[in-house]
Amino acid sequence: MSTDAIASPGPESDEIEHIALDEDYVLTPAFVEKVVDAADDGDGMRLRGLLEDLHPADVADLMGFLTAEHRAVVTLWLPPELLAETLPELDDGIREEVLERVPHLTLAEALQELDSDDAAAVVEDLEDDRRERVLAAMPELDRAAIESSLGYAEDSAGRLMQREVMAAPQFWSVGDTIDHVRAQGEELPELFFDIYVVDPLNRPVGGVAVSQLLRAPRAVPLTELMEPINEITVDQDQEEVAYVFEKYHLISAPVIDSAGRLVGQITVDDIVNIIQEENREDILRLAGVSDEDRGSSIPEIVRGRVPWLAINLATAVLGASVISWFGATLEQIIALAVLMPIVSAIGGNAGTQALTVTVRALATRELNSSNAVRTFWRELVVGLANGLILSPLIGIAAALWSGDWRIGAVISTAMVLNLLVAATVGVLTPLTLSRLKFDPAVSSAVFVTATTDFFGFLIFLGLATIVLL
Amino acid sequence: MSTDAIASPGPESDEIEHIALDEDYVLTPAFVEKVVDAADDGDGMRLRGLLEDLHPADVADLMGFLTAEHRAVVTLWLPPELLAETLPELDDGIREEVLERVPHLTLAEALQELDSDDAAAVVEDLEDDRRERVLAAMPELDRAAIESSLGYAEDSAGRLMQREVMAAPQFWSVGDTIDHVRAQGEELPELFFDIYVVDPLNRPVGGVAVSQLLRAPRAVPLTELMEPINEITVDQDQEEVAYVFEKYHLISAPVIDSAGRLVGQITVDDIVNIIQEENREDILRLAGVSDEDRGSSIPEIVRGRVPWLAINLATAVLGASVISWFGATLEQIIALAVLMPIVSAIGGNAGTQALTVTVRALATRELNSSNAVRTFWRELVVGLANGLILSPLIGIAAALWSGDWRIGAVISTAMVLNLLVAATVGVLTPLTLSRLKFDPAVSSAVFVTATTDFFGFLIFLGLATIVLL
Repeated sequence: MSTDAIASPGPESDEIEHIALDEDYVLTPAFVEKVVDAADDGDGMRLRGLLEDLHPADVADLMGFLTAEHRAVVTLWLPPELLAETLPELDDGIREEVLERVPHLTLAEALQELDSDDAAAVVEDLEDDRRERVLAAMPELDRAAIESSLGYAEDSAGRLMQREVMAAPQFWSVGDTIDHVRAQGEELPELFFDIYVVDPLNRPVGGVAVSQLLRAPRAVPLTELMEPINEITVDQDQEEVAYVFEKYHLISAPVIDSAGRLVGQITVDDIVNIIQEENREDILRLAGVSDEDRGSSIPEIVRGRVPWLAINLATAVLGASVISWFGATLEQIIALAVLMPIVSAIGGNAGTQALTVTVRALATRELNSSNAVRTFWRELVVGLANGLILSPLIGIAAALWSGDWRIGAVISTAMVLNLLVAATVGVLTPLTLSRLKFDPAVSSAVFVTATTDFFGFLIFLGLATIVLL
Repeated sequence: MSTDAIASPGPESDEIEHIALDEDYVLTPAFVEKVVDAADDGDGMRLRGLLEDLHPADVADLMGFLTAEHRAVVTLWLPPELLAETLPELDDGIREEVLERVPHLTLAEALQELDSDDAAAVVEDLEDDRRERVLAAMPELDRAAIESSLGYAEDSAGRLMQREVMAAPQFWSVGDTIDHVRAQGEELPELFFDIYVVDPLNRPVGGVAVSQLLRAPRAVPLTELMEPINEITVDQDQEEVAYVFEKYHLISAPVIDSAGRLVGQITVDDIVNIIQEENREDILRLAGVSDEDRGSSIPEIVRGRVPWLAINLATAVLGASVISWFGATLEQIIALAVLMPIVSAIGGNAGTQALTVTVRALATRELNSSNAVRTFWRELVVGLANGLILSPLIGIAAALWSGDWRIGAVISTAMVLNLLVAATVGVLTPLTLSRLKFDPAVSSAVFVTATTDFFGFLIFLGLATIVLL
């Protein structure tokens, strides 16, 4: 998404914004209500009056709060340019739905208003035959830009970059550059933060921040001002690009092709979106939820969640089968059936703690092979410490309740051992997945709790059988 | 943290970087090994040779991979300026440790190299008496800037902003502004992206992107170029500031005091850090881990995790007490003890799914009172659908295994009901916490799984007692 030249007016600056946004820049329920009323009444003029002064990001937000029928009415009455600018801001599910309702000629026109990366992101969501019709209705140059963007792999730097970029040859001075910008302003990106200095083969050799350019006298050569740059290659994964931006506090970076030639730039606002998206994926995957957003239909949500619940069901059956091995023990001491879920529950919780910390450390690249062994030992020691702190409590409580001190000894020993199992599996599962190039957040949680359930029942009931019978 | 004028050189551009970083800009284990060897040998010159060309962000990364003893040696041999620039990049725990080892005069000198927001972030971590000594050793102006920054609440925009800002009076032209920047360059922020146009009372009335200024002829008045701005007030919470930046794709924003006067600016690179920090907090809190990073000691980690495990232990005991009510039932049908954890496990998983989706939607402000009721109904329908899909499987399996079709009927009914409990508690817990102004991620997970365990056992064993006995 490209940066906004036109900042949204603050909540105070305009009547409609005042109604629409609360002091935290969130849409007010009262405003959403007004839109819903106007849509219900089919009052198009009132609807347009409410919408036309909104920032595209607020229109996208509004869409998320509406039902599909209301979205259809709003789409119909949005001014075309605002519709265009809103499209890249929408959640994927809602964008697909809205795109289906926009005639392809309107869409072709709307897309010309956008930067190449935003336009490509929208076109990407169209069905194959519609995509062709929309592209056919666009001017040659815009079409070529979109098609070239779509030629790069999804989630690659090539897909993310905008082709509009400010480059200057090595022999230019500050004055040459300013004159060029004043003369060619129309063809340059609307906003840019760095000027890339390129050699005769169009390969970037350095960068000059615009504010540094402004500060220098006209006669100074660019090569004197320029600083080393972090080059991004077109095929780099967007997650890696985000890491570089975040680590070195970059505002923009040049993108080069395999021959090292400058082909575009990536700006930090795109990176903010990617960081949020990656975080969302991690947090949802840890909970066993596949891709899902507020635009998802109920069948889509169910399809995303049932597989994980089914796997959980299978592992729960495995846990139950462990219990069934000890049917004879349970028949003699029913107290064990009462206590056994405690051992597995604590194990599951401690395992999830270790797992989450590990997944997070892998995601932020704080964990790699130089400290993996140390991390593992640290988690084991933490698990042991947690066990030694908590097990006396439950041991004494169980002994008092059952009137048998041996039951207290069994449950507290089982808990310490299961906390060690939890630490082991909590660290090793994501590390192994990551080593095998899988996403460590996917399926880790199910595996960890399945293991702590399994061993929780096995250790507790096994020990009880040995000690008590 | 302020933006970097000096971008880090790419991995190819320099010998030392080539050894230090792999193609993803992550420190190589081989490089970390070299540093550890040099530190073990006490070879200060070799250590300095390895370190001096690193980017501060890479030094901070390196510190994270080392043990405390090795960090002490590295701190000793870091060139002073690099040490200064590294301090703001360190994890909190490691920064505190490193700060203890730096003499206060060295520190006072190092802090003068930093922007006011970065210097304040470091000083904040010092013990009270050391803070006073360090501040006393600094020049009046730098000290005043740091003290004023520390005067704002933690996590507020005032603490986050840098005081260095580029402002221009309303009556200036593009040419006036460029001349001013060339003349006053030294006192301006090293990098800036927007020029704030202010009225005679120093209240911002608009903003001009630097690239837009560059594009315009010298005679154009600023007021003709300026766009509305999103003003941040000094007391706004950093999470709200991040939301505004993210929503409107801002690169920088002016900060005003309660009288509306321009007092500083916030840039997007600080926001990237905050977004990452908030995400880290959310993901860890959902797993029941209080603040913890790779610099935390084992006792700190244990203190952060044991309370949640203790609460979990208490709720597990509550679950066990439900089971104990049905001791008589279990004694007659031991199969129920085998099957009961399945019902609670599925409930816990489904509840965690609903909870995580809700916490995430609240964090990104996609969920508020305009769609809360709809979200709740949607989750209930999803829960019912999940239940109707999964319960026949477990019902048939349980009937076949136990040889009693009534047990199959009981477990499948209990599972559907518990999935409805899971959906209810998964949505309502974070919504209620958020309404009461608590962080919805804290303690939600424990409460949700406690509830699904409690009702899982109660519904299953209760139904079994009614139907089977």
